[in-house]
Amino acid sequence: MRNIKIVVEYDGSQFKGWQKQKNKNIKTVQGQLEKVLSNILSEEIEVIGSGRTDTDVCAVGQVANFKTNNTTVKLNGIQKGSNSKLKNIRIKEIEEVNLEFNSRFDAKRKTYKYIFNDTETESVLTKNREYFVGKKLDVENMNKAAKHLIGEHDFKAFKSSGSPKKTTVRTIYEISVDKVKQGIFLGEEERVIVSVTGNGFLYNMVRIIAGTLLEVGLGKQEPEYVKRVLESKNRESAGKTVPGKGLTLYKVEY
Amino acid sequence: MRNIKIVVEYDGSQFKGWQKQKNKNIKTVQGQLEKVLSNILSEEIEVIGSGRTDTDVCAVGQVANFKTNNTTVKLNGIQKGSNSKLKNIRIKEIEEVNLEFNSRFDAKRKTYKYIFNDTETESVLTKNREYFVGKKLDVENMNKAAKHLIGEHDFKAFKSSGSPKKTTVRTIYEISVDKVKQGIFLGEEERVIVSVTGNGFLYNMVRIIAGTLLEVGLGKQEPEYVKRVLESKNRESAGKTVPGKGLTLYKVEY
Repeated sequence: MRNIKIVVEYDGSQFKGWQKQKNKNIKTVQGQLEKVLSNILSEEIEVIGSGRTDTDVCAVGQVANFKTNNTTVKLNGIQKGSNSKLKNIRIKEIEEVNLEFNSRFDAKRKTYKYIFNDTETESVLTKNREYFVGKKLDVENMNKAAKHLIGEHDFKAFKSSGSPKKTTVRTIYEISVDKVKQGIFLGEEERVIVSVTGNGFLYNMVRIIAGTLLEVGLGKQEPEYVKRVLESKNRESAGKTVPGKGLTLYKVEY
Repeated sequence: MRNIKIVVEYDGSQFKGWQKQKNKNIKTVQGQLEKVLSNILSEEIEVIGSGRTDTDVCAVGQVANFKTNNTTVKLNGIQKGSNSKLKNIRIKEIEEVNLEFNSRFDAKRKTYKYIFNDTETESVLTKNREYFVGKKLDVENMNKAAKHLIGEHDFKAFKSSGSPKKTTVRTIYEISVDKVKQGIFLGEEERVIVSVTGNGFLYNMVRIIAGTLLEVGLGKQEPEYVKRVLESKNRESAGKTVPGKGLTLYKVEY
């Protein structure tokens, strides 16, 4: 038996989220991975992800693992074989890990990035990966506001209903809002990036944090507003849940 | 009469190139721009581009201009109105210029970028914007090779047949090959970028230059090979025409 860890990239606009569904006609990332890996390894494969992502949410560093009794197909063969079959998903890295490793329960730190486009016109090249605001954002104030979230807190105000998690206490290790020049693909335009690293996130938590910081960026609220939202433990006091397409699962650390 | 200059971005994978075609069912960038602008300005508009681009070639800084007798619709209205109607094209900048300005004949410097992906696996997020090589490229040698092209030369060896241009002499002001870290959208992965600025380019010239530098990058040829190709004035001696999707029209200067 081998336990295999993979790092995965995907274009969330092409899937109904990560989690497989009973209706096999609904395309999900987990569902597609299991289908292709089961075929290559000639046995039923169950893929465990570090966590779910919603429709439209992309990943450049999702981590997953799966166990297999197949000892003949080499790692390189699994990776290349999968990548040639998968559409809009790629296995970027693959390695064998000890049998106890579980990508979900062993995750220590997760980093998400939320991308705001605050230029004057919506990009046609990256429109599926960012939220177009149409107004300049006050990045300095957003950054000040974000710092109130660092540390261990009850993030109840930043959680959508329907989340089955028992405790709403989470720890945010790092959060920042920066104007970052993008690469050649976008003509080196700048984007406003919310980067957040924590020990785990509640349902829609990053998108509600981004939506709350957006209120500050638009000048509708002062930075201290975020502190009041946190203390309120009331979803109603926070900003809106901004669209999934602006969110990217960036990195999972163990 | 007003003469209006626009800076345009487009996703080349969605068009059969820049130039309009007689068959109006074939989608081209020029064709779509003329259709939308004619509608907004209530007269037939002819759009002059700085030059053509082929199918799949993207632009982050194509420049065009058009004349209009309509004096009522403001620049801001033309831009917003067009962007709300256009698909996969956006007008990034708009300004009124003197009546003599011609985006094609007045262009002084054009910059193109060719993007090679030399990581181990093809990206699903940027696959329409880059050429996946699958092997590490020797960037230092590619850069050495590229320097042979700087200056005024007869670039006959770097021209596809079918080009109606009379002279094949062009000037390359700057050319470099660099490994460049990309932005958040791509998880800050690196890409090998050929960046070339000249006073004008022959048909497929940048793609043949990139294909010739690729031979060097793959270790099949030494840097001096490029000098020999240039001197041969023979298309057969150069590398292949690499795919259009790796090419981006980056900037046009006047």
